Amino acid sequence: MKMLLSDNNSGVHPSILEAIYECNIGHEPSYGADKYTRRAIELIREIFHKDVDVYFVTTGTAANIVGLAGILAPYEGVVAPDTAHINVDECGALERFGGAKILYVPNRDGKIYPEDVEVFLTSLGDEHQVQPKIISISQISELGTAYTVEEIRELANFAHDNNMLIHMDGARIANAVVALDSSFKEMVTDTGVDLLSFGGTKNGMMMGEAIISFNKDISRAFKYVRKQAMQLVSKMRFISAQFIPYLEQGIWRENAINSNGMAQYLKKKLSNISGVRVDNKTSGNMLFVQIPKEWNQPLREKYPVYIVDKESNIIRLVTSFDTTEKDANAFVEYIEGISMGK
Amino acid sequence: MKMLLSDNNSGVHPSILEAIYECNIGHEPSYGADKYTRRAIELIREIFHKDVDVYFVTTGTAANIVGLAGILAPYEGVVAPDTAHINVDECGALERFGGAKILYVPNRDGKIYPEDVEVFLTSLGDEHQVQPKIISISQISELGTAYTVEEIRELANFAHDNNMLIHMDGARIANAVVALDSSFKEMVTDTGVDLLSFGGTKNGMMMGEAIISFNKDISRAFKYVRKQAMQLVSKMRFISAQFIPYLEQGIWRENAINSNGMAQYLKKKLSNISGVRVDNKTSGNMLFVQIPKEWNQPLREKYPVYIVDKESNIIRLVTSFDTTEKDANAFVEYIEGISMGK
Amino acid sequence: MKMLLSDNNSGVHPSILEAIYECNIGHEPSYGADKYTRRAIELIREIFHKDVDVYFVTTGTAANIVGLAGILAPYEGVVAPDTAHINVDECGALERFGGAKILYVPNRDGKIYPEDVEVFLTSLGDEHQVQPKIISISQISELGTAYTVEEIRELANFAHDNNMLIHMDGARIANAVVALDSSFKEMVTDTGVDLLSFGGTKNGMMMGEAIISFNKDISRAFKYVRKQAMQLVSKMRFISAQFIPYLEQGIWRENAINSNGMAQYLKKKLSNISGVRVDNKTSGNMLFVQIPKEWNQPLREKYPVYIVDKESNIIRLVTSFDTTEKDANAFVEYIEGISMGK
Amino acid sequence: MKMLLSDNNSGVHPSILEAIYECNIGHEPSYGADKYTRRAIELIREIFHKDVDVYFVTTGTAANIVGLAGILAPYEGVVAPDTAHINVDECGALERFGGAKILYVPNRDGKIYPEDVEVFLTSLGDEHQVQPKIISISQISELGTAYTVEEIRELANFAHDNNMLIHMDGARIANAVVALDSSFKEMVTDTGVDLLSFGGTKNGMMMGEAIISFNKDISRAFKYVRKQAMQLVSKMRFISAQFIPYLEQGIWRENAINSNGMAQYLKKKLSNISGVRVDNKTSGNMLFVQIPKEWNQPLREKYPVYIVDKESNIIRLVTSFDTTEKDANAFVEYIEGISMGK
Repeated sequence: MKMLLSDNNSGVHPSILEAIYECNIGHEPSYGADKYTRRAIELIREIFHKDVDVYFVTTGTAANIVGLAGILAPYEGVVAPDTAHINVDECGALERFGGAKILYVPNRDGKIYPEDVEVFLTSLGDEHQVQPKIISISQISELGTAYTVEEIRELANFAHDNNMLIHMDGARIANAVVALDSSFKEMVTDTGVDLLSFGGTKNGMMMGEAIISFNKDISRAFKYVRKQAMQLVSKMRFISAQFIPYLEQGIWRENAINSNGMAQYLKKKLSNISGVRVDNKTSGNMLFVQIPKEWNQPLREKYPVYIVDKESNIIRLVTSFDTTEKDANAFVEYIEGISMGK
Repeated sequence: MKMLLSDNNSGVHPSILEAIYECNIGHEPSYGADKYTRRAIELIREIFHKDVDVYFVTTGTAANIVGLAGILAPYEGVVAPDTAHINVDECGALERFGGAKILYVPNRDGKIYPEDVEVFLTSLGDEHQVQPKIISISQISELGTAYTVEEIRELANFAHDNNMLIHMDGARIANAVVALDSSFKEMVTDTGVDLLSFGGTKNGMMMGEAIISFNKDISRAFKYVRKQAMQLVSKMRFISAQFIPYLEQGIWRENAINSNGMAQYLKKKLSNISGVRVDNKTSGNMLFVQIPKEWNQPLREKYPVYIVDKESNIIRLVTSFDTTEKDANAFVEYIEGISMGK
Repeated sequence: MKMLLSDNNSGVHPSILEAIYECNIGHEPSYGADKYTRRAIELIREIFHKDVDVYFVTTGTAANIVGLAGILAPYEGVVAPDTAHINVDECGALERFGGAKILYVPNRDGKIYPEDVEVFLTSLGDEHQVQPKIISISQISELGTAYTVEEIRELANFAHDNNMLIHMDGARIANAVVALDSSFKEMVTDTGVDLLSFGGTKNGMMMGEAIISFNKDISRAFKYVRKQAMQLVSKMRFISAQFIPYLEQGIWRENAINSNGMAQYLKKKLSNISGVRVDNKTSGNMLFVQIPKEWNQPLREKYPVYIVDKESNIIRLVTSFDTTEKDANAFVEYIEGISMGK
Repeated sequence: MKMLLSDNNSGVHPSILEAIYECNIGHEPSYGADKYTRRAIELIREIFHKDVDVYFVTTGTAANIVGLAGILAPYEGVVAPDTAHINVDECGALERFGGAKILYVPNRDGKIYPEDVEVFLTSLGDEHQVQPKIISISQISELGTAYTVEEIRELANFAHDNNMLIHMDGARIANAVVALDSSFKEMVTDTGVDLLSFGGTKNGMMMGEAIISFNKDISRAFKYVRKQAMQLVSKMRFISAQFIPYLEQGIWRENAINSNGMAQYLKKKLSNISGVRVDNKTSGNMLFVQIPKEWNQPLREKYPVYIVDKESNIIRLVTSFDTTEKDANAFVEYIEGISMGK
């Protein structure tokens, strides 16, 4: 049975596992001086159409924190929506490792806009207050919504106009590119994003996260910060080799097309069930679904779910690169069964 | 050609790669709630003969720092030899992430003894000084030497007598157990070690490090600290599954026997070459070899080497789980060629 | 001319300056081992009717941070209203020095209630989330309001029922005791407050802040943390001696009676001016006053003011221990002049 | 009775106390925007003959840590002798607040030289190792010795040649200037020191320490870092006003002449006592004196002393700005009495 709790529940796409298998030949220089890492970086530069700086790490939290803490002085802050992963799901890693504060604003469907950041500009130069330095957005957001290309550009422009930078937490970036029918270049490079957490793990990699800096001035310290963050993997080829088929063979797109499509499929099917209300704002591979509270118990007997809003009883469903119509149908049938009191 | 620069240059033992391949079946709960992680923990408890706490991480530095910082208050310090990996090769990770100080003492062949720690006891209770809390030793040490079981016990007893704890950086722990012809139980559990960084990566794993706590009172915070340390891998089965054949099939021993044996083999062969002086104090898979300075250049044309002492021109050689007699012979012949001015 | 910008603008009460002068006799042990410090601690224990732990520091921020960071592990958080001084006016000191996160909730007139904290209880035990550990309230709050004794007790009970602690930022604690017609014992000791930042500087001291722990189990580390926080003053008698007349002669009460009274006096007078709206919720020595925007410019020509809400044009006025009726009248007349277009 | 334990035992010079008294007139802008702070900064710029950046703080540890942590990234280190105050007497404040490591070298009579720093240059660019960034020296050193002007210049040149900076811990800087018969300009500004902890507390101030930056590029963050370090005193005039007579009336020199002179006086007198051996390397106001171990007990009955070397039984004596010949004679007579078995 395939789970719908998180895209972390799935395993590794076969072609990526193959790449891991195949790079296990003989000896290679360690800590990223190997040929697989070089090739993976080349490919990343190609898809972003820019000579970016790239640092591989093992978790999405590490990608966020190494990048942010690699830029911020401890008296500088990150402006982010309250729902941001860095704010609620990283156990205070930025505060501990970076010493920096998250200046959060109430989200609007998981997103923020330039006017939300404006309030922090009055702190500039005031020694009593944390200095706003980076705007962090999640694309796709934690509530499943996507910023349009134009919205990203506006935030980036606002940031740059105010001596700030913009970071994108791209844990589900492939899903966003597919949902917007855009490209990495158009959505990230061309909008002016400065720092990207490029996530692969949730889209079919084993452990594959890359910190990508679009501005070499801001990433000078990253190599030291990654090491201090305990993220300099010695046999790095086994991380970086995963990116080769992922980018070269377009697995990133193929996987995101599937998981996004399965979410749409589920949405359509679930919407037909009486008692179920599906949030229509999401794109990508997440669904937020309101169900009657009395369904929770029978649902959990088979499907572990994450209730994101206890009062309204809204559950989160996440499809994976390997979710099939059969998997979706099984879930829908199970819910239908519950709805009919079976 | 196989390198002798570090045991990080080798890849993954085939049976461990197989385990990774085989755990890639369907969906599993993430963050370590999967069956592979449970099994790996069981096996670790078996080899240590104790109901230890186990936390998997992806790098040796992470194992050291999450464990140490998970125990230390920031005004407490770790007493370690100046040669300790935590002191010289982790880019100040403990100071940054833990806020704690390393109280170091001059090493004696890479090791320290209770009398070296005694000097810090006068700081106890003095608010101007960092409070010594943990003694950290590396087994095998960074200079290739091993503590005897009795030496470890004495340090542990000294630590406990003075309200301190003892940590073992076991990045090459399998090599130590084999070198001493001991067991994990005898060398670690029974000597009174409180905290162990159990390394697998240098001995044939892909990424496989475990923090092992022998005292549940000291590891209560570890789960939060691991997350804050950006080390909570979502698809954790791919880390933990590696430990299953490693422990169940005795790959740890088989690999260490090979690398230790190859180091001895190399030692014998190299000792016969005129102009070469091999340090006799090491056990395990590291050799420290003095060669004439004019050999460095031709040597490096084929073999990258790490010169640990520029004045005496001492180089470090490290054998791997997959080093063969043929590999060793190739190196010896190459050195011989240099020695004969070829 | 006396300012109404902050109670930091005033100097030192003459009797306190006298105490500083008088303790300057001969040599004394440093770092708090002197007789003045002993006496000051005795007096604090008397007014709180408890054998509390006391640590003197030089700033209010230090009192807050040393106490909070002396208790919190870096994965633990402080729940506080968004208006809290620790959240907005300490430049991220807790995040930097303590590594800990502030879990903030929207304030209600500067205050929070148990139901505001409840939402964080769902994080307990979840390694992805900061663990709520301390509830921090400011008495008097940054918006000039005071918690009733009963409200404090309810928060303390809620904290203790949920394995949390309660901290009171008492930068203006004397004003609160006077405003509530209460006592230190009734308002702090008896309500169950665990940790208090006892402020004197804003009420007529030169530099006089004390961290007071009502539970010796939580303050074991404070002496080390104060030193690490760079707050262990060598000639400490000059800090602690200030507390002797402050407490022994009741200067704390006398000063707070004056500044609270002057705020009430100002409130009455200002309310009579057409165009002025005074917030009625405050007690203590702070007033929040809405004036027409066009008054800002002429007002600032004589009186620097802090505009707390730009949209509504609300300014903050703070009276001091040495504010007189004459000072208040001068301000009122000046505002009247502006209101009449002079 | 005047103590000889530390120059922290003395109180405040009368003229400085007078300045504190006199600045207590009416209201002043807080946080350093007052006229006394402006004047004190002017005077500091005059004595150093440079348009330096100045930040007042309350403790010597704060001066060191705010300055160092205001410059260092957490992966950068400070090279200092093992005896440095920042290394042994600040409870790990730099590690905790700055996250940075102290790279220490064995001292030579409390001092270090360029060749001692050279060993760390091999770490430059290596991500596994802390990057050496600042050389920190104490003038006068913790062992009572002084660097010559030329020695300071050589260290500064070495630092600058290697992209490093030089910090001087001047807790006893006035004693050094007097001992060398130099000037602040010659000894600090002209030698190329980048960052100075300018201490006044040990030389007759109440609490008076200033961080002085000779290079505005390195001190841009200091105002935020001071606030984060909990060292932004609200009624700052009471700190800064102390510097006015100290510099304007030459109290710094007068006090240092006295304490240095009294140390010399004591040295001469003590050297005549059989059984006593006085270290001749010190200048300034510290003496290191070897006495028979059996004298410790009777000595401590009257004079608390700090035994710096238990094996050799060497005690430290420190004279103060207010030590008189009578005080010195009393001590000498007491020691003589002990030596004669009285």
